[in-house]
Formats: sequence, C-alpha cells, structure tokens
Amino acid sequence: MPQPLRIAIAGALGRMGRQMVEAVARDSRLQLVARFHRPGSIGEGLVPRDEALAFADVVIDFTTPAASVELAQTSAARGGPALVIGSTGFDAAELAAIAKAAEKVAIVRSGSYSLGLNMLTGLVEQAARALGGDDCDIEILEAHHRFKVDAPSGTALMLGEAAARGRDVRLEEVAKRARDGVTGPRPAGEIGFAVLRGGSIVGEHSVGFLSEGERLTLSHTAGDRSMFARGAIAAALWVAGRSAGEYDMQHVLGFGAPWQANPVEFHFNGR
Amino acid sequence: MPQPLRIAIAGALGRMGRQMVEAVARDSRLQLVARFHRPGSIGEGLVPRDEALAFADVVIDFTTPAASVELAQTSAARGGPALVIGSTGFDAAELAAIAKAAEKVAIVRSGSYSLGLNMLTGLVEQAARALGGDDCDIEILEAHHRFKVDAPSGTALMLGEAAARGRDVRLEEVAKRARDGVTGPRPAGEIGFAVLRGGSIVGEHSVGFLSEGERLTLSHTAGDRSMFARGAIAAALWVAGRSAGEYDMQHVLGFGAPWQANPVEFHFNGR
Amino acid sequence: MPQPLRIAIAGALGRMGRQMVEAVARDSRLQLVARFHRPGSIGEGLVPRDEALAFADVVIDFTTPAASVELAQTSAARGGPALVIGSTGFDAAELAAIAKAAEKVAIVRSGSYSLGLNMLTGLVEQAARALGGDDCDIEILEAHHRFKVDAPSGTALMLGEAAARGRDVRLEEVAKRARDGVTGPRPAGEIGFAVLRGGSIVGEHSVGFLSEGERLTLSHTAGDRSMFARGAIAAALWVAGRSAGEYDMQHVLGFGAPWQANPVEFHFNGR
Amino acid sequence: MPQPLRIAIAGALGRMGRQMVEAVARDSRLQLVARFHRPGSIGEGLVPRDEALAFADVVIDFTTPAASVELAQTSAARGGPALVIGSTGFDAAELAAIAKAAEKVAIVRSGSYSLGLNMLTGLVEQAARALGGDDCDIEILEAHHRFKVDAPSGTALMLGEAAARGRDVRLEEVAKRARDGVTGPRPAGEIGFAVLRGGSIVGEHSVGFLSEGERLTLSHTAGDRSMFARGAIAAALWVAGRSAGEYDMQHVLGFGAPWQANPVEFHFNGR
Repeated sequence: MPQPLRIAIAGALGRMGRQMVEAVARDSRLQLVARFHRPGSIGEGLVPRDEALAFADVVIDFTTPAASVELAQTSAARGGPALVIGSTGFDAAELAAIAKAAEKVAIVRSGSYSLGLNMLTGLVEQAARALGGDDCDIEILEAHHRFKVDAPSGTALMLGEAAARGRDVRLEEVAKRARDGVTGPRPAGEIGFAVLRGGSIVGEHSVGFLSEGERLTLSHTAGDRSMFARGAIAAALWVAGRSAGEYDMQHVLGFGAPWQANPVEFHFNGR
Repeated sequence: MPQPLRIAIAGALGRMGRQMVEAVARDSRLQLVARFHRPGSIGEGLVPRDEALAFADVVIDFTTPAASVELAQTSAARGGPALVIGSTGFDAAELAAIAKAAEKVAIVRSGSYSLGLNMLTGLVEQAARALGGDDCDIEILEAHHRFKVDAPSGTALMLGEAAARGRDVRLEEVAKRARDGVTGPRPAGEIGFAVLRGGSIVGEHSVGFLSEGERLTLSHTAGDRSMFARGAIAAALWVAGRSAGEYDMQHVLGFGAPWQANPVEFHFNGR
Repeated sequence: MPQPLRIAIAGALGRMGRQMVEAVARDSRLQLVARFHRPGSIGEGLVPRDEALAFADVVIDFTTPAASVELAQTSAARGGPALVIGSTGFDAAELAAIAKAAEKVAIVRSGSYSLGLNMLTGLVEQAARALGGDDCDIEILEAHHRFKVDAPSGTALMLGEAAARGRDVRLEEVAKRARDGVTGPRPAGEIGFAVLRGGSIVGEHSVGFLSEGERLTLSHTAGDRSMFARGAIAAALWVAGRSAGEYDMQHVLGFGAPWQANPVEFHFNGR
Repeated sequence: MPQPLRIAIAGALGRMGRQMVEAVARDSRLQLVARFHRPGSIGEGLVPRDEALAFADVVIDFTTPAASVELAQTSAARGGPALVIGSTGFDAAELAAIAKAAEKVAIVRSGSYSLGLNMLTGLVEQAARALGGDDCDIEILEAHHRFKVDAPSGTALMLGEAAARGRDVRLEEVAKRARDGVTGPRPAGEIGFAVLRGGSIVGEHSVGFLSEGERLTLSHTAGDRSMFARGAIAAALWVAGRSAGEYDMQHVLGFGAPWQANPVEFHFNGR
C-alpha cells in the first residue's frame, strides 16, 4: 500500500476549509498533516503556515485571492509543496502572480471543483467538435431554485462556450438565449438555451445534441457542496509530484492534451 | 364475448381516414362495417354515406368542418349513430351547429385524440388545484423538431391553461413565457415556460411542480400519428350507447365534471 | 385576513418535531401555541401535554405508536383538537385504537407526508384506471443512494399497487420485479420494475404509461426532509374543523372517494 | 467550394441501400455516381460493380458478409476506392479477409453507424477512466418496445463494456444485471443495469456516473433508421483519402488515439 499523500488545509476555519478538513480526514489515501488559517493565526489545532508548508505534499486552499497569491509565492520561493487553489475573484494582476509562481511549482486552480461539471464541459466540447453543426442542433437546458436571479446560469453559458469552442465559432454569434413567439425554423449552427426556475433545485444542466433520427444528451445534477471537496481531493492526488505549471480541472480529468495545438509542450509547462 | 362495435369511417381516403381503417381492422373489439369518403362518392370499397350510417354504431370522422357539420345534422335527424369527430378549424357557426346536433345524438369532438396528452391535461389541472401555488412552482418545458416556427407550442400553452384553471387564475396574468438576463427571484404563482428546438423531435411536454425539498413531474412524449387512431377508437368505445350530448376526450378519460360551466346539466344529458 | 391556525407540536424535541417547530414558526397561516415532548416533561419552552391540547386547533405528532395512541384517546375524550399523526410502526391493536378515537375526533394519519409522493400515488391509480391495460404498458423506475439494501423500494411497490388497483388486478399477479436474459415479448397487463442504485440519490420514482406511439410519465424526486414538514402543515390546514373520521393524505389532496371500499360511509363521517 | 465526394452504393436495392441512395442524393457534399446490387445485376439504374468502383471515391456497402469480403478484395486489388461497410454477421475467416484487404485500402467497418451511440460509447469509456470507481457508481438504464425479447439490450452491454474498459476491469466481474430483494449496500466498482420495456420505444440508453453530491448522465435516444444513413455518410466523408487501414466509428469520431496502447502504429494500419 502506498504512503498516504500529506495534505495541509489553508483557510481551515472557513466554510469550505472545514468541509475539506472533514473530507480529507475520512479519506484513507490522504493524511491531514496540518491546518492553518491566516499565516500567523494559531489555536484550535492550527499551525503557522510555514510549518504547514514544510510537512505537506499538497496544500488545498479555499481562501481569498490575496491569501492565495501570497501562498503561491511562498511555495514557489521554497520549491513546494504543490497547490490546489479554489479561491475565486482574482483580478488580472493576481492571476499574473499565480502564473508566475506556477513556473516554479505545480498549481491546480479552478473556479469550480465539481468533477461532474468539469467532465461535462470537456465532453461537450469534444462531442460538439466530432458531431459538427451541419445536422446536429445543440440545446442547453438548466434548472435552478426559485431564488436565482439571473438566466441562463453562468454554468449554462460556460457549457455553451465549450460547445462553441468545439465548433470553432463564437458563442455570442450563435447563441439563442430564449424563444418566444414566431421564431421561424431553427437556423443550423444555433446554440439554444432554455431555463427552468422553481423549488429548491440546486442546479441541473443538460446539453442535447439533436439530429435527424437520434439524440445524444449529456447532463449533470448537483446535490450539495460535498462534490467540491471530492473534486479538490482528486486534484490534490493528481497534482502531487507534477512538474511546475498551472493546471485546471480539465487537465486533472485528462482532457486538454487531445485537442491542444501543441500537445508536446503541455507536459513541460502546462497548457 | 360481446358483439364487436360496428364502426363506419368517414373521409376514408384521407390520411387519418386511411390510418383509422387500418387501426379498426386490426382491433378485435371493433367491426369495420362501412367506409365512405364524400357523401356521394363510391368505388374502392366505399359505400354511400347514408348506407354507412344505417349499419354503424359509431362513425369516426376526420374530414372538414363543413363535412362534419353535415354528418352531425344527418345523424341527429335520423337518431344516430354516435359520432367521433376529429376535424379541426370549426368557426363559431359550425360549432353551434355541432352543439345543436348533439342535443339529439352523442358526439365526441376533440382537436387532439392523443390519450396521453388529454390525460396529462386533466392530471395537470388536478395537481395544480390540489398542490396550490403558495409553495409550488409550475414550470412547463416543451421540445420540438427544428422546423417548428412558433414558441411555446400550442400544447404547452394548453397545459399552462389547465394549470391556471386548477389554481383559479388566468394564464395571461401569471405566464412567464421566457427568461433571459436579470430576472430577479421567481414570483410565487408564476407559470413558467421553456422551449427546446432541434433534430426531429415529434413533441415532448413536461410540467413540473417544484416545491421546497421535492418535485413532481408529469410529462408526455409523442412518437407518431398512430396515437391519434388509438384515441379515436377509445372514444368510439366510450361513446357508443351514450345519451345525446357533446363530449370531449376529458370525458372519455373520466375527467370532465370538475371544470364544466354547468355541471348539473351535464349529469342530465351527459354520462 | 383569517386568524392563523393554532398548532401544537408533540414530540417537539425529536428530529421531525424540531423540524415541525421551525416550519410552523415560519408559516404566517399558522401560530405555534405549544410544544410538548412526553406528557409530563417540561423545560426548554415545553408545556404539559394537556395544557397544549387546550390551546391548539390541531396537534402535529411525530412520536411513537404508543404515544400517538394515548394522544388520540385523550383528544377523543375531550372532544379535540384534531390530530395529524406521522408516527410509524403501529401494530393492529394500536391501529384499532386510533380508528376508535377517530370516531370522536378528526385524525389524519399517514406513513409519508410527502405531498408529491401522495399526489403521484393518486394520479397513478387514476391514469391506470383511465388508460386500461390493453395497449398501455406500465413500468416503474426507482433510484436511490448506494446504501439502500433492498429493491424495489417500498415506495415503488406502493406505486405498483396503486397502478394495479386502478386496473382492478392484484400486483403480485402482474408484477415483473426484474428482467435479465431471454424474457420473451412483454405480456400485456404486466407491471414492470427497474432499479438504479448509486451516489447519494435521496429517492426518485417514475411511472411510465407506454403505448403505441406515445408515452405518459409521472415522476417524483425527493430532495430532503423538509418535504414532510410541508405535507404535515397541509394536512393540519385541511383537517382543522373537519368532522370526526380517520383520513390520509389522499383525502387531503382531494382523492379518496374513488377507491374507498365503502364510499357511502365515507360521506357520512368523512369529508 | 470543394468538389463533392463521389459515392457508389452497393446493395442498392436492399432496405438500407435504398435509404442510402436517398440520403446521398439529398446531400450537397456528395455526388451519387453509381448504384449496384449484386456484382453482375443491372437494370433500374444499376451499373456493373466494377464500373461503379472505377468512378467512386468511396463505396457504401450494406450487404452480406460474403458480398462485402468480395468487394473489399476487389477494391484492395485495384487500389481503391475506400469502403464504408455496414454488413453484419461476419465470421472469423471473413473478418480476417477484411483485415487483409485493409492493408491495401482504407475501410471503415461498424456494426452500427449511429453517430450518437458511437459517440456515447466513446464518452462513457473516457468518463469511466477519468472519474474512477472509488466514489463513482456507474448505472446503465435501457428502454425498448414491448416486443424486444432479451435484456439487457446488446447496446447496454456494449456500453457496460466501454465503462469496464475505462476502469481496466472485466464487465463480467463487476456487472449487476438486475436487482430484486435484499441486495445489501451497493459494492464499489459494480456496474449496474436496469431495463424498461413497453410501448413502441425504439431504443433509449442512459449511463449514470453517480457520486456523493453530484451525478453525470450520458444518454442516447434513437428515433428511426435515418440515423444510420447519416453516420455512414459521416464515415464516407472521413475515410476518403485516408491511408490503408481498418477503422471503426470510434476513429471517425476522433476517439481511438487517446487510449490506444500504441498510438503511433494507429496511423499506419489502424487499430
């Protein structure tokens, strides 16, 4: 049996941090070696950040852009450990700092650690590319709870962008965001959206590839936040021991390479 | 074993007429006793209309409004047989003439003989009434082939009307026909629509009753026109021997009473 | 605006009791007038049971069979209040005692207060009756989490019984609980079951009415236990002020009459 | 605008042959240059086989194993054209003869030309590989018309094999073909099957990847045989001008390479 991977959790007192602590503690492939919150904060089982970095193979970090940048720079300066970053809301300068740190250390960074949604995104791009747009109509359906205030959902638009990328078109040129009234026949190449709202639906997305005589549907149903902890753990297991580079969940799931313009470079410094 | 019901087919050379001839011939509960096309036309196994009326328990009629009115008046004048009318496009005067004939003879008339869609319509009204609108959000989804030119489909709107009737509201006051952009939270009582278009989908409709913590979904998938022949046969078996009156598929399926304007009369000359 | 309905919660320290307290407190149609746990227990805002009965229009009771029987007898002896009983595991003697008490007081008792599942059950029986079994195949699909140890689920079998009742057949004579290998063509009249297990699915049930050329599907998705609290509240609102009698959720939802063994009696002491 | 691809149709009087003739005639990317039935048969617009081979870039062949072998050998001997073979029921010797011919000419051969089902198969293998079996439960659901005599369907088993391949296990060791009674908790790694039968459903397959807190579902709905003609045309467009080799629909759709043991060889003589 292999040694368990040594994990440190940043932001261990935050909502996702707490959930990560529990998920890592339950997973026999992992050993929770340290928790820290802010660089200097101690107590409640926390250790100083720099001590945590010394003992971990991978740090999982759901904090703030500023804290993540500082963590990435520190890890780059000392040559590790690898990072899994789930903070969101980075500005351009912060993204550049992360990219710079990733020249020295392996970093997975994603706005959503759902394995299912990332898998769906990759499969949608791939199917859109293979099936083409001449006789295959793409329609995206999403459903959310009654409190959601915008439509279509950001995830639905992200799936639409993956489909458009697969077809080498721009989403804004082919998107049909809603249909009402006399629409005429559906133009070939259009990517349509439909929206349902009600009850307490956490989030459902479905991408249909509709052809003459058959239909392929790829869909995802979200249940609760535990899915993000699972995905972050998958990322940690994947990134441990990788060469420096900035990766996302598409790499973790094995996409990326097949349709990269320069797949050889990929293994050197990421995508 | 009971005697098979004697059926005559009007418009026997038309598309639905031909399909009815085949469906009746295959059904052991029925005996095809006569086919006619226009009142006087003969040949190809056809008999004159008045001869057909003399031998049949029920006439199934998918023709034109004018032909159906004349058939209904003739049948009323001679005291039978009962009629199943599937012609569409009646104007007000023609509807009045049918209603007048139905004082003397039992007539089922429907714009769609799909058992499934009529069942769905009745169930939707009933569920909408029982579940109320305080904590139950109704959403209607429909999907059709790429050549359909309007949205939402007429059937989706009909289902929305059934739901509104169940809640004692007017659909036009609560319908949300499409959502795009910043919509704000979903208002209680709204009935939402969503539309998918693509491929060769014949017709799919789904009505969701979405509540905190659970969801009820009632849906229908159309395959091909054979469903209309099955429904017309069910109507013929139901109407044979009934008292005079004008009925629709909701009566055939055992709904009906709840939303009659004058339910008392209904019990006198109806079922 | 009407006076809010005065509710007392039995078993207020239990899991469902606590959830009921919260749900009632949030609902403007209701006023939470008393909580009690065991007849004599006090503290934590609890009042003695008999005091609670004096102030409430309806008591909602998720406790144990013995406690529910005693509550029903006490309420019957003093002529109210009405009860909504969600305890499960009654034996025959306890059921008889509840029925006896229901001669003096209105009681709703159900093994599941999900409005959606009870609605589904009623609609399935109704659709099965109206559509018949000659050309309509009924198939029941259920999906649950990976820890469920039996198949098909109790709810799936209950839905099968509703379908069988609608067709006036016995489920055990027509059930096809699983299919594997060379099955031959599907016999008319069969009611089939299919089972999915995996992940953390709370519970999904779907009943298909499959005909030549069309399909009607009635389905339910459970999310979390909040759906039971909603249903118990609906039952409380319905039962308040009713004549004595034992009711279930089918009555609350407006079904009931069609499948009572003795519908005449029902109208005397029922709704 | 590119020159249209010149297509000859073998077995042009058979059911699929006739359908191919129509589909090719409608497609502006293609030019139907010849139809033949058996090598020597003429009349009804047919030409002798060898004449057809002389004019075509690709021959589409839905005939018999013996006829397809002879066609492949003839084409190999004369150095083309490329072939799209949809005949089924080859024995080992016939398969060897096709493989031998494929050393000289490019041949796509598949038992099913549905683009959607082949896409689904590839995506299922890929998702099964990426998501692993530790926390991801795979369940396969299929539905067919009431006349289907075996269960699970061959396609469902093929999808199960793709999933097993993705996980590097053997399907027969992990398949759970049906569940009934006390099953106990679902073992990790199991691949489950569920079967629905009824009405006139052409064929539906759905593969669920069920995890704690989320679910990914990949599914396919077949409508009618037109989907096979579309897939054969896609294969013809893909194979024209390829190096010699035997290919299948996975290659046409761009799968294949990523999970080949020896991807370099792939471009030389196929998989």
